[in-house]
Amino acid sequence: MSDQHIQSAFDRDLEYIQAKIMKMGGLVEDAIRHGAESVISRDEDLARQVRQGDACIDAITDKVNEDAARVIALRAPTAVDLRIILSVIKISTNLERIGDYAKNIAKRTTVLAKIYPVEENTRSLRRMASEVQYMLNDALDAYIKRDSKLAENVIERDQEVDQMYNGIFREYLTFMMEDPRSITPYMHLHFVAKNIERMGDHVTSIAEQVVYLVTGEKPDDGRPKADKTSLESATLRK
Amino acid sequence: MSDQHIQSAFDRDLEYIQAKIMKMGGLVEDAIRHGAESVISRDEDLARQVRQGDACIDAITDKVNEDAARVIALRAPTAVDLRIILSVIKISTNLERIGDYAKNIAKRTTVLAKIYPVEENTRSLRRMASEVQYMLNDALDAYIKRDSKLAENVIERDQEVDQMYNGIFREYLTFMMEDPRSITPYMHLHFVAKNIERMGDHVTSIAEQVVYLVTGEKPDDGRPKADKTSLESATLRK
Repeated sequence: MSDQHIQSAFDRDLEYIQAKIMKMGGLVEDAIRHGAESVISRDEDLARQVRQGDACIDAITDKVNEDAARVIALRAPTAVDLRIILSVIKISTNLERIGDYAKNIAKRTTVLAKIYPVEENTRSLRRMASEVQYMLNDALDAYIKRDSKLAENVIERDQEVDQMYNGIFREYLTFMMEDPRSITPYMHLHFVAKNIERMGDHVTSIAEQVVYLVTGEKPDDGRPKADKTSLESATLRK
Repeated sequence: MSDQHIQSAFDRDLEYIQAKIMKMGGLVEDAIRHGAESVISRDEDLARQVRQGDACIDAITDKVNEDAARVIALRAPTAVDLRIILSVIKISTNLERIGDYAKNIAKRTTVLAKIYPVEENTRSLRRMASEVQYMLNDALDAYIKRDSKLAENVIERDQEVDQMYNGIFREYLTFMMEDPRSITPYMHLHFVAKNIERMGDHVTSIAEQVVYLVTGEKPDDGRPKADKTSLESATLRK
């Protein structure tokens, strides 16, 4: 039983750092949800909250990095322990980036609140954001439980997010062509969609870290890439 | 004189890894230049080359990560040496991301070669890409020479890149409004511009690593952010 496992100093340090990662994860999940929500409902107060919250996420990232370096210097971990502690640094970097994307999304709220309102497809954006949020929740769960199956499931689901993004891209192109007054708002909303899609990539990168940690193998080789907008050319409908 | 400095095992290992970083840097610089050039001149062969080259950049990143982990395990570096070796991991991650952006830019070549040709502002895109390429060159130079002044100069210059991007964003909005047939190509070209701007952010992140390495202080606190498109709302001109 792992209950009887005598904790090493390294394990204690690691637990302490992992608690910080989980705290960060919670804050980043909130940032994803609130960032998307602020843009969709043009809620400037919520947007301000997300932007201010990002400073906190950045501060924890710095702390995790310092702590991890201290543990390496102090405990000189090797093999699996070293792999774990290096993965902590990478995961916190990914979380920080996701937080940045959420902040950038929230920043669009001000301009969107001011300009020509469009019948934006808020359902797609909201669905995409909440899928990414669940993926992040599962990726961190997989990390704590060292569950490579769950991590692989997260990697799979990123393809759905990419497909949602492809759909949104096509849709926005069509709307812009139909009504040139909607070009500016849809350029901003497209930016939001693309940022959510990029968040998904960072969540995937966390999940890949988990697979590597558990199996020693990198899962991403040959992973199909489902963002197909680079091949996309909508034709004008009039 | 540093010539008389007796090299430690750690120094030798570090030199070996740093040589790899510099090799990667050269490949990534080529990827930036060729990626932008392939899109601008709609050169599908060049685009293919960039996409294939990215696999090589990814392979070196993996190797650098493995080597760095091995050095940590073997030499148990502390203090400054540890900070250096951790910075190597971060810099290689940044380089790999820049390579990904170059690949994503190159991918747009195929679609742009097929659709309605626009009077794209190639000069701005080309100028932006070459500025980012020079910044990367200087950031890596600053890294090897541990030159925090040069690194700070790189960080400053990223604001110009952000301003170039702002100009392009406004310009494209106007073009799209004037001629709806140009919406699709300009959506793709905007994607290219945004990716170049993001490359600049990653170069800045490398430069910030250098400043931290040399001075022990993080330079990014309160750094002004010059991407103002989140506040941008062009008005329709007709």
